[in-house]
Amino acid sequence: MSDLPKRVDIHEEGPREGIQISSRALATEDKVRFIEALAETGVAEVNCVSFVNPKRVPNMADAEAVAAQLSKQDGVRYSGLWLNRGGFERALRSGLDLAGLILLSASEAFSIANTGKGTEDTIAEQRAMLARYSEASIPVEWASIMTAFGCNFGGDVPVSSVVSMAAKAVDLAAEQGIVLRGIRLADTVGWATPASIEKVVSAVRERWPSLRVGLHLHDTRGCGVANAYAGLRFGVDQFDSSCAGLGGCPFAGHKGAAGNVCTEDLVFMCEEMGVSTGVNLDRMIECAQMAEEIFGAPLPGKVMHAGTLARFRKAGS
Amino acid sequence: MSDLPKRVDIHEEGPREGIQISSRALATEDKVRFIEALAETGVAEVNCVSFVNPKRVPNMADAEAVAAQLSKQDGVRYSGLWLNRGGFERALRSGLDLAGLILLSASEAFSIANTGKGTEDTIAEQRAMLARYSEASIPVEWASIMTAFGCNFGGDVPVSSVVSMAAKAVDLAAEQGIVLRGIRLADTVGWATPASIEKVVSAVRERWPSLRVGLHLHDTRGCGVANAYAGLRFGVDQFDSSCAGLGGCPFAGHKGAAGNVCTEDLVFMCEEMGVSTGVNLDRMIECAQMAEEIFGAPLPGKVMHAGTLARFRKAGS
Repeated sequence: MSDLPKRVDIHEEGPREGIQISSRALATEDKVRFIEALAETGVAEVNCVSFVNPKRVPNMADAEAVAAQLSKQDGVRYSGLWLNRGGFERALRSGLDLAGLILLSASEAFSIANTGKGTEDTIAEQRAMLARYSEASIPVEWASIMTAFGCNFGGDVPVSSVVSMAAKAVDLAAEQGIVLRGIRLADTVGWATPASIEKVVSAVRERWPSLRVGLHLHDTRGCGVANAYAGLRFGVDQFDSSCAGLGGCPFAGHKGAAGNVCTEDLVFMCEEMGVSTGVNLDRMIECAQMAEEIFGAPLPGKVMHAGTLARFRKAGS
Repeated sequence: MSDLPKRVDIHEEGPREGIQISSRALATEDKVRFIEALAETGVAEVNCVSFVNPKRVPNMADAEAVAAQLSKQDGVRYSGLWLNRGGFERALRSGLDLAGLILLSASEAFSIANTGKGTEDTIAEQRAMLARYSEASIPVEWASIMTAFGCNFGGDVPVSSVVSMAAKAVDLAAEQGIVLRGIRLADTVGWATPASIEKVVSAVRERWPSLRVGLHLHDTRGCGVANAYAGLRFGVDQFDSSCAGLGGCPFAGHKGAAGNVCTEDLVFMCEEMGVSTGVNLDRMIECAQMAEEIFGAPLPGKVMHAGTLARFRKAGS
């Protein structure tokens, strides 16, 4: 197992991915205490809110209030998501830890369905956003390629399309004098298997050996943790994941676009295999239990229900 | 991905593993129609019932009635489970497709907790059972090693203990002139990760290169599908799994010993990666939906809720 990375960064997506898709109206104070608890687990970043149209995503109407009420810990990034200029300007006033992201889709059909813009228009928009980030002194370190493993609107996505779109992102960054740190590949609608993870990740790493590769995985069809493992084998060292398996993409075109890969299940696997996440698993399980209480429903995480192995090891020693 | 097997056998465990743990009393006719539907999916084997003490497992009190009422298809094995001589005699009269299994536990603590017998007593019992199988002309092809990846009673299980217990099984078979076809490694209580799967499977394959290796996996801590993938990479070509993710071991010592790895999720992953299962995924999803109806509860399978990729590929072509 010597080819697994020694250490990975976990970006917690539960507050954003989970709350934006929830049909239950959640109280601002519950969102705040959930984010604050997550920030105490040791994750590198908590994605707190999205600055999107409150008519489309009513649970994000209080994004500014959530950001304002947070008591922040040192050593954790409290991030937010935006999809356009208007969202960015809101994010900029929120006081969150912003980082610009170059956001492209490997499938043009998804881009059109998701934002109404094709690839060329999206690139032009991203170029304008990069100029705005520069003006606002907001750093840009990663590009994210959506639908990198398949698309509900465009079908299978060739590896060459992912590499080509990643190249456009690298070029866009270079135009602004930015050297990217990494490329995040998103299985936006849950098509990936370990085999496609291997193919796409190895193609991207071969083309850009000095860039980190991250994965944003959904567990739509049960392969989420397996896909994370396949990524680890090929040097992926950053994962987006959701506490308790919260989440799903409300615009993905079908209601089964279920949650992100579950943070505590991913942390369990990594730590058991000797891959350090920096995350305190017991605290993350407490957050998952808090999420079930706040959301008022059983959530799909497994380790939160089964518990860790610690008590059995103690009994067996 | 050239190291993955071209073809794997799926043994469907849902009727036995799922029904034995259900707290809801299920009707015999529902059990029968569930098994009959599963037998039409293309799985190699359906494990239909267990011949165990009805006082401990009330839902198996009608095991004989279920077996008697089945309309059987050609090309599918309708198997049953027993744990002792009394159970075997009941199974023998049931008309099911019996095969003797050498059943040992890598953790003696589990063996004692599960059956009241230590390793030496278990071996003596298995020796007597083999003699009885021979007398009854029941074939013996596989050995199964329980708690091969960890134990809630004994803690971590060294690889050497698994290999040593597998050697005892091979020797037991040889005493009776039986050449085993394979060794099934069971993650009875959900401790395995892809790393431990690799270690244990590769040790067993190295010692017995001509034997098949199977995996009986539980998804207790979310690693079930990832563990199956790790097994595939090391040549495992037989999996026990449960439709809709039904199951769990009622004697595993904690209530979170959740379901087996989910059949349709496993089939989805295999088929998408070019590993043939012989299973019709659409039919297996229909069985999973039938299981939710019969059990009257949402079940943990993912593909059954998200659907396959076929409709999106059609739309995108």
